Amino acid sequence: MSLPSRHALVPFVSVDHMMRLVLHIGIERMMVELADAIEADFRRWPEIDKTPRVASHSDIGVIELMPTSDGQQYGFKYVNGHPSNTRRGLQTVTAFGVLADVATGYPVLVSEMTILTALRTAASSAMAAKWLAPRGSRVMAMIGNGAQAEFQALAFKAVCGIEEVRPYDIDPAATRKCAANLAGRGLRVVPCATAEEAILGAQIVTTCTADKQYATILTDNMVGGGVHINAVGGDCPGKTELAPAILHRAGIFVEYPPQTRIEGEIQQLDPDHPVTELWQVIAGTAPGRLDAGQVTLFDSVGFAIEDFSALRYLHARLAGTGLWLDLDMIADPDDPRDLFGMICRAETAATAA
Amino acid sequence: MSLPSRHALVPFVSVDHMMRLVLHIGIERMMVELADAIEADFRRWPEIDKTPRVASHSDIGVIELMPTSDGQQYGFKYVNGHPSNTRRGLQTVTAFGVLADVATGYPVLVSEMTILTALRTAASSAMAAKWLAPRGSRVMAMIGNGAQAEFQALAFKAVCGIEEVRPYDIDPAATRKCAANLAGRGLRVVPCATAEEAILGAQIVTTCTADKQYATILTDNMVGGGVHINAVGGDCPGKTELAPAILHRAGIFVEYPPQTRIEGEIQQLDPDHPVTELWQVIAGTAPGRLDAGQVTLFDSVGFAIEDFSALRYLHARLAGTGLWLDLDMIADPDDPRDLFGMICRAETAATAA
Repeated sequence: MSLPSRHALVPFVSVDHMMRLVLHIGIERMMVELADAIEADFRRWPEIDKTPRVASHSDIGVIELMPTSDGQQYGFKYVNGHPSNTRRGLQTVTAFGVLADVATGYPVLVSEMTILTALRTAASSAMAAKWLAPRGSRVMAMIGNGAQAEFQALAFKAVCGIEEVRPYDIDPAATRKCAANLAGRGLRVVPCATAEEAILGAQIVTTCTADKQYATILTDNMVGGGVHINAVGGDCPGKTELAPAILHRAGIFVEYPPQTRIEGEIQQLDPDHPVTELWQVIAGTAPGRLDAGQVTLFDSVGFAIEDFSALRYLHARLAGTGLWLDLDMIADPDDPRDLFGMICRAETAATAA
Repeated sequence: MSLPSRHALVPFVSVDHMMRLVLHIGIERMMVELADAIEADFRRWPEIDKTPRVASHSDIGVIELMPTSDGQQYGFKYVNGHPSNTRRGLQTVTAFGVLADVATGYPVLVSEMTILTALRTAASSAMAAKWLAPRGSRVMAMIGNGAQAEFQALAFKAVCGIEEVRPYDIDPAATRKCAANLAGRGLRVVPCATAEEAILGAQIVTTCTADKQYATILTDNMVGGGVHINAVGGDCPGKTELAPAILHRAGIFVEYPPQTRIEGEIQQLDPDHPVTELWQVIAGTAPGRLDAGQVTLFDSVGFAIEDFSALRYLHARLAGTGLWLDLDMIADPDDPRDLFGMICRAETAATAA
C-alpha cells in the first residue's frame, strides 16, 4: 500500500519516549522550562478558552475530557480518576492528550500525559510559589509521599531554590521510596516521622496526600506565620487536606475560581469567600503576598490551560529528538471526495503485492 | 528499557489497518454488522449517556469532542469540520476515537475514525431506512456524490436490498467518481444529470451534499408520496438541504431531538414541531411509517451513540486480525506510587545498555 501523506501522520509520544525526553532534557531544566511555559500562558490568561471539563462519573471513578484553545492551537487531555485502581496494581490517574491546529482541525500531536501531568503539576506549583512564597525560602515540608512527591521536590529545587525537603507520609514505606529516589540529586532530604516534624523550619509546606475524604493533614496550630502552603491533594469534591481555620487566615490564590470552589480546599468555605486568581498576580493586576508574615495558600486543583501549556511545550521541544512515532491516524485521500476510492486502491495494492 | 506491562498498551487502529479490516470483512458484510450493532444500541437508548458534544468554534471551522458511556464502556470521538480544507487538499472532516473501560478508566482502543465514521453514517442511514422506507424499495436516488456517497449506496444494497442507485451531483466529476467506484459491485448505477432525473422511480432519496448554506436540494414538487428521504447533509446550524414544505408533510424521525433541532433539517421548523425518535420505533414504543403513501424523513445529523456502537464493534471485531499496533500510552509502574522511580530506572537501563 502507498505511504500515507504528511498530513495523515500524527506524532505520538509514548511513555518510553516521555521518560527518555525527561532524561534528555534533564528533569530540573524541564521543570524550569515548563514553569516558564505555564507562566507565559497565565500571563495571557484571558485569551485562552476556559471550557469546563466534561466528566463522566461512575460508582468507582470518573473519566474527564479537558479541552481548551487559544485560537491558534487546540488541546485536550483525557484523564481518569479511580482510587480503587491502586488495589489492582493500576494507576489511580492516567492521562493522554492531543494537540491540534485550529486552522485545519488536524491533530498535530498525541502524547502520553501521565508523566507529563506529574511534571506540569509540579512545575505549576513551583511557579506559583515563585510568586507567593516568602523570599529566601529554602526548606519545604513534603506531606504525602506518593507519585507526585519527587516531582514537587525537584521542581521547587529548580524553580524556587529549595535546598532541604522534609518528606512525611502516614506510610513510612512511601517516605523511604521518596527519600531513596531523591538521594544524590543535590537536595538535603530529611525523612520525618510526623507531619509536625516535617514542617519544622519549613517556609513552604506542600500537601499532596491521596485521602479521599475530608481530611485534616494540616491543623490550624501547625501553621505559623510567613508560610506558603502548596495544597495539591485537595483536588475533587469531598477531598480536602486543610483545616478550615487555616483557610480563614490565609491569602488564597487559585487557578480558576469556578473549578476551585467545587474541587479545591475552598469547597469548605462560603462560595463568596475572597480569593485571588493567580494569573492576575502574574499579570500585575492583583497583589500577591502582602508581607513576610502572611500565610499564603495556592489551592491547586489542576486546570486545562496547564495541560495545554505542557502539550505545546512538548510539541516544540520534540524537534530534533526523534522521540516520537508517526501514527497513520488521518485518512487523507489525494481527492478529499474520494475516501471510498482510497479503500479500493488499497485493495488493488494488496492484490498486486 | 523494560517492556511496558499489558495495561500500559493500548491497541491503535491506523487508517491502513482500517482499510485492511474493511477489505478483510468485506464492506457489505461490515455494513450489515455495523447496522446491527447500531440498532442494538438504539433499542437500549435510555441506558446510554446523551452528553451534548463539546464544540470549540473558530472563524473557519469547529473541533468537537463527542463522549458517551453505557456504564460499562466509555467512548469519545474527536472530529473537526473545516469546509475550506478541501481547497488545501485536506479532508473537511477527520476523526479519531477512543474506547475505555469504565471500571478502571484505562483506554482500551484508539482508532482512526474518518473511515469508521463514513461506515457508521451509512450503516445508520440504512438501518433507519430498514424501519422507515416503503416495503420492497429497490431504487435509491443519491444526491451529492462526495466522500459519503459510495458508502451510502453499498449500505443500502446490503441492509435494504437496494438494486439501483441513481447518483447526481452539481459537479459531474463527482458523479463520474461515484459511478466508477461502484462499478462491478452488483448495483445498477445510473448516473444522472439533474436531481429530477435522479429521483425518477426512486423509493428512497438520499441527500448528502456539502453546501454550507441553507440550500434547497429537494423542492416540494420533486417529492411524491410513498418516498423515504434519508437526509444526511443537513448536519450543522445553517446547513439544510430540504424545502420546508417537504418537512411539513413528512413523518420526521430523528436521532436525538435536542441536537437535531439545532443541526438538522428541522432547524427550519418551530421548536415544537412533532418528531419521532428513531429508537422508539425500534423499541416498539412509537409507530414508524404509517402507510405506503406517507413521506418519511430520517433527519440524520450523526450522534455520539452511533460512534460508540462503531468503536465497540471495531474492538470486538479486531480479535484475531492482527490489524492494530500496540501503543505504549499508559504509564504503569510496578508500584503505582513510584512514577518517578520508573523514570530513574529507565535512566539506569539506558546507561547500562
